[in-house]
Formats: sequence, structure tokens, C-alpha cells
Amino acid sequence: MSHFLPVRLEHASRLINHGPTVLVTSAHGGRRNVMAAAWSMPVEFTPPRIAIVIDKRTFTRELAAASGTFGVIVPGAAAMDMTYAVGTTDGRELDKFNAFGIETVEGPVLGLPLIEKHCAAWLECKLIDEKHTEDAYDTCFAEVVAAAADPSVFSEGHWHLDASNEPLHTLHHLGAGNFVSASAMKKARALPR
Amino acid sequence: MSHFLPVRLEHASRLINHGPTVLVTSAHGGRRNVMAAAWSMPVEFTPPRIAIVIDKRTFTRELAAASGTFGVIVPGAAAMDMTYAVGTTDGRELDKFNAFGIETVEGPVLGLPLIEKHCAAWLECKLIDEKHTEDAYDTCFAEVVAAAADPSVFSEGHWHLDASNEPLHTLHHLGAGNFVSASAMKKARALPR
Repeated sequence: MSHFLPVRLEHASRLINHGPTVLVTSAHGGRRNVMAAAWSMPVEFTPPRIAIVIDKRTFTRELAAASGTFGVIVPGAAAMDMTYAVGTTDGRELDKFNAFGIETVEGPVLGLPLIEKHCAAWLECKLIDEKHTEDAYDTCFAEVVAAAADPSVFSEGHWHLDASNEPLHTLHHLGAGNFVSASAMKKARALPR
Repeated sequence: MSHFLPVRLEHASRLINHGPTVLVTSAHGGRRNVMAAAWSMPVEFTPPRIAIVIDKRTFTRELAAASGTFGVIVPGAAAMDMTYAVGTTDGRELDKFNAFGIETVEGPVLGLPLIEKHCAAWLECKLIDEKHTEDAYDTCFAEVVAAAADPSVFSEGHWHLDASNEPLHTLHHLGAGNFVSASAMKKARALPR
């Protein structure tokens, strides 16, 4: 039974506003995959749209192009080793879900395999047809059609990151298996002019 | 006298690999500006290319389009209030550098105004002509032509984030003036299959 709660679509872009490293899931014709992606960003709040770099040589790109969809998972700090594992293995050679014991839930709108354990949030996305940037920069634009989050870290459209929920603080990949995680939240003060 | 050291161009994309919120600087015809941008990502390592969302209504977009260039600054945690200040004021109404006492250095290749105090790194960027994504998604593609970093946090192509340099740990904006900063680095362990 999922402990995630739906996130309103106008709040979905906030799930990746601060640049977390994400997992990308995909499925088509009985095959499925999950990879890690450090390079993603929102491009619009309403409608919720994102851009994400998915190398054209990857199995994920093949499945996403075939289905026109992909999932985005925001892993928590507790999922660091799993994130690195799916980022350094090839889904054409093994089913990474089975190989690493990763449980999935089924996306409500697109039926994508999604991950909730040790993760903060997920988004189901539909590819937007942007062949030029896909070809030139491996940059895929997509619209978010469903989203949900663990309410202990994100609810009512806002993140809540404090010392009580560190295992779900987002991960940010520096390179070569070195990560940072998000600190507890800090509030900026207005500066005098 | 700058304490920054040059970053080799093949390492430049690593400066924003982990999704920090950045500052965008611009100048043209005697006018200049600085804004904050949460939505950016690398799209390629070699040549170093990035994508960044800059709203078409902003003064920054006007100056960047006119000059064909912009600067990207990676602020440290110590620059949180300044980052929020330049993200919530309009450069057409005030010179934010003067208003908030922000010192600049001149970029070595493009002559852009750059910021080093309380910041981890900067990149000088040349816009790539991608009118469709600029129009449709406010997404600007650019190539990095120069980069430098404070060697206490980034040297030899790698980040070094630990308890000794927390004021320069990168910032990540959650929304509405709420930020997280990067934790100390953690190394992922290889999972058994």
C-alpha cells in the first residue's frame, strides 16, 4: 500500500526545482528499465513541463521513444547506493529492478513502473515532440501528467526538509559516485537596498 | 586580486552537474544585470554546453539576446540572502550590483561582470542560436567558453565539499526564499547484484 499522496499538477515542477539527481523509468512491449539522470530541470510550472538529458544510446531512450512516456523518481539519501547502481549498469544486459531488488508501483495515468521506497517523489511524464533538441543535445522535453510525494517531505505544494526526515533528503550527484544531499531548509532574509 | 583558479573546459559542466541554483549576469551597451535562476543543467561535457531557463520578459534575457552572452555564477551558502535579493528585484528598476553592494570581476574571455565573493565558481557562456526552444520554453542553450572556481571547493576537475568549507557549499532553491545547501560529500558503495 502506497504511503505517497498525489501532488497537484501546478506544484509538480517544484519537485525538481532544486536540481536533484533523479531516476528515469521506462517500459515498452514487456521490457522495462531504470537509469539515473543528473541533468534535468523544470521549464514551466503551468502546464508542468520539464527538460531532461537522456543519451540517445541508452536503453531508457529507446523505451521512452517507443512508448512516448517516462517516469521521473526523486530518490532520497537512503537510496544513494541504489541510485549509483542503476546509473552504472546497462538495462539491456540485466533487469535492474530484479538485480537490485527494487520494488515498483504502477503509475496511475501512464502505467509506468515507479519507485517509492527510500524515495521522496515521482512524476509520470509524456514526451513532447522536439526532435531537434533530442538529436542535437539529447535533451527531451516532457509534460508531467501525474505526480505524488511522501507527505513527510512534500505536502501542500511545499518541501519540508528538516532533521526529522534526512533519509528522504534529495540527492545531488557531483560525479563518479560522489553525492551531496540536501541540508535542512534555510530561509533567506530580505536585504536592505 | 582574484583567488579563483581556471577550470579546464572539459570539467566546466561539472560545476552545475548537481543542480545548484545559479546567478545569471549580463551586460550590453553600458547596462548590466544579475538575476537568480534555479532552472539550469549541463547538456554536454565536451564541448561544455548548458541549458538554462531565462524568462523572455526579463531584463537579463534582453541583455543576453543583445550581446549573445551571459555569465553563470555558482553562489555559496554565504550568498543566500544576496541570491534571494537579486532573484526578487527588477534590473530595469535598479542596478542590483550597486543596490546590494555586489563586487564584480571582469570575465577573461567575454568581459562579463562576474561575482566571486561568497561564490564557488563562475562560467562565461555564449548563446547558441536555438530560437524555437527560447520562444517555446524560455530555454536557452549556450556553450561555456571560460570557467573558474574557488580552489577550496573545486580543483583538478572535482568538487571538495566538507565541513571545512560550508560557506561555499552550493545553494538549491526550493521556492519562496526557502533554500537547502549541499551537505558534505558522501561516496556511494557498489551494490551486489
